[in-house]
Amino acid sequence: MRILVTNDDGITSRGIQALTAAMARLGEVMVVAPDRQQSAVGHALTVASPLRAVSMELEHASIAYAVNGTPADCVKLGVSTLLPFRPDIVVSGINHGSNTSVNAIYSGTVSAATEGTLMGIPSMAVSLATFNSSADMSLAAEVAYDIASRLLDLSLPAGTLLNVNVPPIDRANYRGVKVTRQGHNAWKDGYDVRKDPQGHPYYWLTGEFVTLSEQEDGDDFAVQQGWTAVTPIHYELTNVAELNRLKGLFER
Amino acid sequence: MRILVTNDDGITSRGIQALTAAMARLGEVMVVAPDRQQSAVGHALTVASPLRAVSMELEHASIAYAVNGTPADCVKLGVSTLLPFRPDIVVSGINHGSNTSVNAIYSGTVSAATEGTLMGIPSMAVSLATFNSSADMSLAAEVAYDIASRLLDLSLPAGTLLNVNVPPIDRANYRGVKVTRQGHNAWKDGYDVRKDPQGHPYYWLTGEFVTLSEQEDGDDFAVQQGWTAVTPIHYELTNVAELNRLKGLFER
Repeated sequence: MRILVTNDDGITSRGIQALTAAMARLGEVMVVAPDRQQSAVGHALTVASPLRAVSMELEHASIAYAVNGTPADCVKLGVSTLLPFRPDIVVSGINHGSNTSVNAIYSGTVSAATEGTLMGIPSMAVSLATFNSSADMSLAAEVAYDIASRLLDLSLPAGTLLNVNVPPIDRANYRGVKVTRQGHNAWKDGYDVRKDPQGHPYYWLTGEFVTLSEQEDGDDFAVQQGWTAVTPIHYELTNVAELNRLKGLFER
Repeated sequence: MRILVTNDDGITSRGIQALTAAMARLGEVMVVAPDRQQSAVGHALTVASPLRAVSMELEHASIAYAVNGTPADCVKLGVSTLLPFRPDIVVSGINHGSNTSVNAIYSGTVSAATEGTLMGIPSMAVSLATFNSSADMSLAAEVAYDIASRLLDLSLPAGTLLNVNVPPIDRANYRGVKVTRQGHNAWKDGYDVRKDPQGHPYYWLTGEFVTLSEQEDGDDFAVQQGWTAVTPIHYELTNVAELNRLKGLFER
């Protein structure tokens, strides 16, 4: 099996190293990842400037490229152009920080896996639900291995990927896998307004993630309870339930 | 009525000028838009650097700020911090280029309206389905006016916004509004590999949008047939149809 590994924290992050080591137990690992931190880039693509790719050595990987682009760029450029083989699966992560609820929309980690899915390759995103930069990655790596080893057998429908969020706990307290829905929690955010030495304002995004609902089948609730949340997501954005009502309003 | 107008082509684009003029017929227009072209940024947020906002004069707008960020940044910073009033609606566009099918995922125009929805404000994105930079914006502006004037009355459910795509045709051939689904068409893309003067490669994204299916209820098909496609979209990404099957595979 050939595995394309990518992420949004950049090719030098601890998360991608842990993921690369775990995936090497499954087959040949090819890494194409951003050359720097790309968190919260969403599904951005670089269209107005060219990309560069620097080949490098990375432990457990047969091939590794650092790209001056977004996670979605890395998958698109990797699969179409850089890699000598089409990967059998795409695995993105291990992200430092949860990609549950609304975070999935802003997430570069998820967007990389979405891009793999758009290219017809079974894909998954893996995140460890803590911003602690020295957190133990071993449980998340083990979960990534278990799920990636089954990814082809799952026969996900076209356009659907797995968004996997692992709780930041030790193995003794870990409860296993729950299949969940994207939760309804959100950021309560705002901007910290500061003045530069010339007296002109600038704005830093700040915020805290708030639990709006204790949604029992939601991804956040599962992670809080010590489960890995596995959510099947797709890029079909239509709110089908609204179609007929709006037809009545617009097409009468 | 107070309308927040934004876009992803930047505050100096023809599309936002046409939209601002059209929205001024509805009420007070406040513009917060990127200071430069931000196409294909997806739902990116600027988290690793601060934002700047420059106040400027813009015809038909009571307030205008140019922000060195993404469309989603503009809505978040505008509503939370810059604007003296909370807008009643958010209207993003008029984008140069279709945001049908998979384009909705990459679109900064759509992401700005999504951010408005996330903040609880009825929101819509408007795109003119041509990349011709001198295309006539008057039909798209008229359609934007018509739909925006009804946006509050539509009582869209929480989390749902309208993705509006207008055909690049003249009024004589225009057929009206169709409520559609996000289509299944996609980009067939790749990279043009070039060498710099030092002989090192760089990669330009290229591609063409291909019609994979003549999906009769899809947004692309409607636009091709001379209709404005109005698609209700939401950021609920769960593939609900897969939940039970995956539960059987993961939780047995």
